[in-house]
Amino acid sequence: MVVASPSIQELCINAIRFLAIDAIEKAKSGHPGLPMGAAPMAFVLWDQFMKFNPKNPKWFNRDRFVLSAGHGSMLQYALLYLMGYDSVTIEDIKQFRQWGSKTPGHPENFDTKGVEVTTGPLGQGIANGVGLALAEAHLAAKFNKPDATIVDHYTYVILGDGCNMEGVSGEAASIAGHWGLGKLIALYDDNHISIDGSTDVAFTEDVSKRFESYGWHVLHVENGNTDLAGIAQAIEAAKAVTDKPSMIKVTTTIGYGSPNKGNTAGIHGAALGGEEIKLTRENLGWNYGEFEVPQDVLDHTFKAIDRGLNLETDWNKAVEAYKAKYPTEAAEFERFLSGNLPEGWADVLPTYTAEDKALPTRKHSEICLNKLAPVVSELIGGSADLTHSNLTELKVSGDFQKGAYQNRNVHFGVREHAMGAICNGMALHASGLIPYGATFLIFTDYMRAAIRLSALSEAGSIWVMTHDSIGQGEDGPTHQPIETLASLRAIPNLTVLRPADGNETSGAYKVAIENSKAHRPTLLALTRQNVPNLAGSSLEGTAKGAYAVIDCEGTPDLILMGTGSEVSLCVDAAAKLASEGTKVRVVSMPSWELFEAQSAEYKESVLPKAVTKRLSVEAAASFGWHKYVGTEGDTVSIDRFGASAPGGVLLEKFGFSVDNVLAKAKALLG
Amino acid sequence: MVVASPSIQELCINAIRFLAIDAIEKAKSGHPGLPMGAAPMAFVLWDQFMKFNPKNPKWFNRDRFVLSAGHGSMLQYALLYLMGYDSVTIEDIKQFRQWGSKTPGHPENFDTKGVEVTTGPLGQGIANGVGLALAEAHLAAKFNKPDATIVDHYTYVILGDGCNMEGVSGEAASIAGHWGLGKLIALYDDNHISIDGSTDVAFTEDVSKRFESYGWHVLHVENGNTDLAGIAQAIEAAKAVTDKPSMIKVTTTIGYGSPNKGNTAGIHGAALGGEEIKLTRENLGWNYGEFEVPQDVLDHTFKAIDRGLNLETDWNKAVEAYKAKYPTEAAEFERFLSGNLPEGWADVLPTYTAEDKALPTRKHSEICLNKLAPVVSELIGGSADLTHSNLTELKVSGDFQKGAYQNRNVHFGVREHAMGAICNGMALHASGLIPYGATFLIFTDYMRAAIRLSALSEAGSIWVMTHDSIGQGEDGPTHQPIETLASLRAIPNLTVLRPADGNETSGAYKVAIENSKAHRPTLLALTRQNVPNLAGSSLEGTAKGAYAVIDCEGTPDLILMGTGSEVSLCVDAAAKLASEGTKVRVVSMPSWELFEAQSAEYKESVLPKAVTKRLSVEAAASFGWHKYVGTEGDTVSIDRFGASAPGGVLLEKFGFSVDNVLAKAKALLG
Repeated sequence: MVVASPSIQELCINAIRFLAIDAIEKAKSGHPGLPMGAAPMAFVLWDQFMKFNPKNPKWFNRDRFVLSAGHGSMLQYALLYLMGYDSVTIEDIKQFRQWGSKTPGHPENFDTKGVEVTTGPLGQGIANGVGLALAEAHLAAKFNKPDATIVDHYTYVILGDGCNMEGVSGEAASIAGHWGLGKLIALYDDNHISIDGSTDVAFTEDVSKRFESYGWHVLHVENGNTDLAGIAQAIEAAKAVTDKPSMIKVTTTIGYGSPNKGNTAGIHGAALGGEEIKLTRENLGWNYGEFEVPQDVLDHTFKAIDRGLNLETDWNKAVEAYKAKYPTEAAEFERFLSGNLPEGWADVLPTYTAEDKALPTRKHSEICLNKLAPVVSELIGGSADLTHSNLTELKVSGDFQKGAYQNRNVHFGVREHAMGAICNGMALHASGLIPYGATFLIFTDYMRAAIRLSALSEAGSIWVMTHDSIGQGEDGPTHQPIETLASLRAIPNLTVLRPADGNETSGAYKVAIENSKAHRPTLLALTRQNVPNLAGSSLEGTAKGAYAVIDCEGTPDLILMGTGSEVSLCVDAAAKLASEGTKVRVVSMPSWELFEAQSAEYKESVLPKAVTKRLSVEAAASFGWHKYVGTEGDTVSIDRFGASAPGGVLLEKFGFSVDNVLAKAKALLG
Repeated sequence: MVVASPSIQELCINAIRFLAIDAIEKAKSGHPGLPMGAAPMAFVLWDQFMKFNPKNPKWFNRDRFVLSAGHGSMLQYALLYLMGYDSVTIEDIKQFRQWGSKTPGHPENFDTKGVEVTTGPLGQGIANGVGLALAEAHLAAKFNKPDATIVDHYTYVILGDGCNMEGVSGEAASIAGHWGLGKLIALYDDNHISIDGSTDVAFTEDVSKRFESYGWHVLHVENGNTDLAGIAQAIEAAKAVTDKPSMIKVTTTIGYGSPNKGNTAGIHGAALGGEEIKLTRENLGWNYGEFEVPQDVLDHTFKAIDRGLNLETDWNKAVEAYKAKYPTEAAEFERFLSGNLPEGWADVLPTYTAEDKALPTRKHSEICLNKLAPVVSELIGGSADLTHSNLTELKVSGDFQKGAYQNRNVHFGVREHAMGAICNGMALHASGLIPYGATFLIFTDYMRAAIRLSALSEAGSIWVMTHDSIGQGEDGPTHQPIETLASLRAIPNLTVLRPADGNETSGAYKVAIENSKAHRPTLLALTRQNVPNLAGSSLEGTAKGAYAVIDCEGTPDLILMGTGSEVSLCVDAAAKLASEGTKVRVVSMPSWELFEAQSAEYKESVLPKAVTKRLSVEAAASFGWHKYVGTEGDTVSIDRFGASAPGGVLLEKFGFSVDNVLAKAKALLG
């Protein structure tokens, strides 16, 4: 690649800086320091190394770029604009951080084409980057042939001190080093300033040594402000090491160019202000007006447009050649990229009758995963060191490991948070992969930020969460979810499903797989303990979120509603009540979100307003249930922490028995 | 200290192993591998190094011991029993993991005296340990005199591979290295096995090098199975380095002694089984029956009882001498330990009238913290790198740093999760400290496991969370809580307060400080933006959780209820409605938990059942509000993610305007 002359390089870098400065000043909000300091590394990367097509931001074989230090979003918007993307115009830049703009406060993949993942919550981006690199490694191992390469790109991440302080980045870096993801290259903007001031107040560790301890290839550019050749050489060197991820520490000055605010925390999270901007213009010799970009800059940077077109054209030829030689693989590859599922995929999901053996829903989940795995070959994932408790192994495949990237069983280690962010990265690789991550339901607390981001950033991750109540048993209250279901149901755009039996677990997987392709995450809450198969359960009912599994003639006197392992309690209690002449409906309610998405008519048909005697039964907090049981209803629930004892004992002690359900029901009936 | 003969040492270690093996076999549940492998290091530590008084487990100046690898709880129960604690008898050990026992699945400080913190969720214990060591360092710097030492103990932690994979442990270790907490000594049970099998599948980093990168003093005992002298020498060496925390990697064999299951994942989380126990007894030459402990062992280990008595007696003398010389400091020290607050402390909390200037509640929080700081000298804490956004600096103090441990402003860095666990450690040091930790409300997602553990383990931490709604503004949806309040309200034993103005913020701090002394955590949700002071607000009302800030004559036609920044919207809407002849009550509802704790009469008086037209107004998810608005009520809420724009614009766009409240209210009134 031809390197531009030093003068044009400097001009481009200053253009980035002043676009950021002017946009942040106009918005009176934003983080100017990072774009000013990291502009050289970012420019060198995009200008000399990055493979992308601005006119087709979603071109599959592009390099992925993640600004993990998402508060420097204006760096990315300036790059997108200068490199010829249509998604960010100069008008968009002028609308930085305004209502309805494509240039929000932090990079959001769902708002701005060319942004790969949503960053801002620190450390997520680097962990997403591990997922993007994992996806590339997996697809390359799966599809590339000795004589034909169709999957081949790098994942570049810029991260800051804040990212490096967050535990999730450490988790992700450790597992990336273990996997030896050689095409992951992280540039660490080592500027020694975070919001509280010098990193000396809280962050004096040796970051390079730490990354070495993870097995990374570590480099250092001492002068990231002006040593552009040094930055380029370091990236070259990083690319040359193919069996380890690379971390390039680039020492920079935050707010480089600002005479009075550079190298201070004052420039971290606040606009420079008019006078300082004037001084910065003088200091950097920038004689252009607000939002003005010299034509020389655009003439240079817009070359990326032709470059991108040629890159994609060459790749298309390679894909055509591949198709000719390897039609079967090519068909699968094209299906992956299309986002379509294989014809008839859902037919493999098992159905059950009430005569079938009682099993834990985690076991039903294992059956579903293993029925799906041979058919839905884009299913890839694993557990945070609980594989044989979560029952998430795909028996058709081996372990994803260094030298065996074609495999689909991913061992994340005891790293729930990184697991979440890595799955999100895989989903947002947009290559059709359906990632799943598993742990105990309670440990969603460790990865909640990643679960939330899956919902916000439209990542079709599937969260397989087992041991979903006090039925967990002996491990005790630290391992028993109480408020966890409520806390997850409250997250917008996340579908939570707690299936009651085999049919509902199959139904839950049908929803989860379809959701994934529609860029929506799904969380499954599954039992440790056996549950009977219900006579009235169905995949179709599950997809509606709530439905009657037992019904009566006419208007019910009472509705019992439950989820998961407690539905069978409702069924047993209903049988007893019916035998005593009470008209009872039992509503299984595996997913509140799916139920809320139904028509008003359907909702009224399941839970008629006229029936006010309603009892919910769920081995979890009552929080949220009042929406369904109403003012006159009641709940069988747990509003305290659990305890350590065998699961059956706990369920009994906490009131999850037919007798207690009957007692509460009769109290309601009066 | 006299070291026991090798034979008696081995006997004691095997006694620990077989107590664990037999208890786990009886319960058919538990993790035998860790107690068997870590027994030597634990025994050497407790027998030769640990300072404690079994007959007074809460003796202040004891060394703190944390089993961060909490799944090995039987190791700790065996130690407590053998060392003469009354809290764990042989009968308790036989009740391992049973309903109501003092020997639950994971160590729980609230169940078992001698257990300092609650562990099990991995990585929490080592981070708690940093908090315990911080507390010791602070109190030592504050109270000790050149000629009088009354605070002087070590914090020992045993952690495993799982702990070391979790990000929270990395965060905590990094900041502990920064602080140079020399009296923190971690023993890393390096057994190369986690639940998924060999750590080779997911954990191949160089842990020692990583801890060196954090600035720790690192040692290695290569044969932790039998080299007892090596373990002792390493602990000695660790104690000798006073300016750095020490990490001793102790390489062990998981399930040491089991001929067929040792060194396998099979022994990690499941009982050995009868035949293998028999073989293990043979292999280790253990000729004793189930739960049988040879008298020789007890004769040796019970010496800890006299030793402990003498240690406490000596310390009591030192305290008496200190009292004589330094009566003022001694009085403060005694007050700290008593758990009492200073007389009249709450009088410093400011009150406001409606004429007082509108301020953000985070600013009111800053005022409260700074009014309290000089009086409540046990208040210590800080922010995860958002000090000047959270406004949590105590101006009366400097920064807690190496060489300045007497200071109370703690910079946690961008490490929310470790911040949470460190605060919990400080609270559970049980020396009267009131720790607080601050970040943006949304980032409770990063530290949720620690917040939950504060509630479960009765740690009186105060969580100061600012930027509590879309009013956050330009940072956009990644930084704006929507479901966050609901997710926190659902946690048992956690008091969440979202004050509406100055008076309510003072009221919230009154609750939070009192809660802390009663071993209950409190979470404050505070605005970024200005809120007016309300005419009807009060500290007393706040303490009741909900109360009328505006009322009407007779039974209201309508109740408007809100929290925080939205109460003033309700007040303005009510004024308009009242002017039109509607009888309106406005209920400010800063804390659902406090309201639920009131009498039925009080609750009925605030929200009479007869008034069914109820509208809640809160810039957050509607989730949970139906309990209060009932079947016929409505909510002004946000059930989608936020957006990037100025906060005022967002509040208006999302319907938080008087006009929209009026429109919804009128729709209800019909």
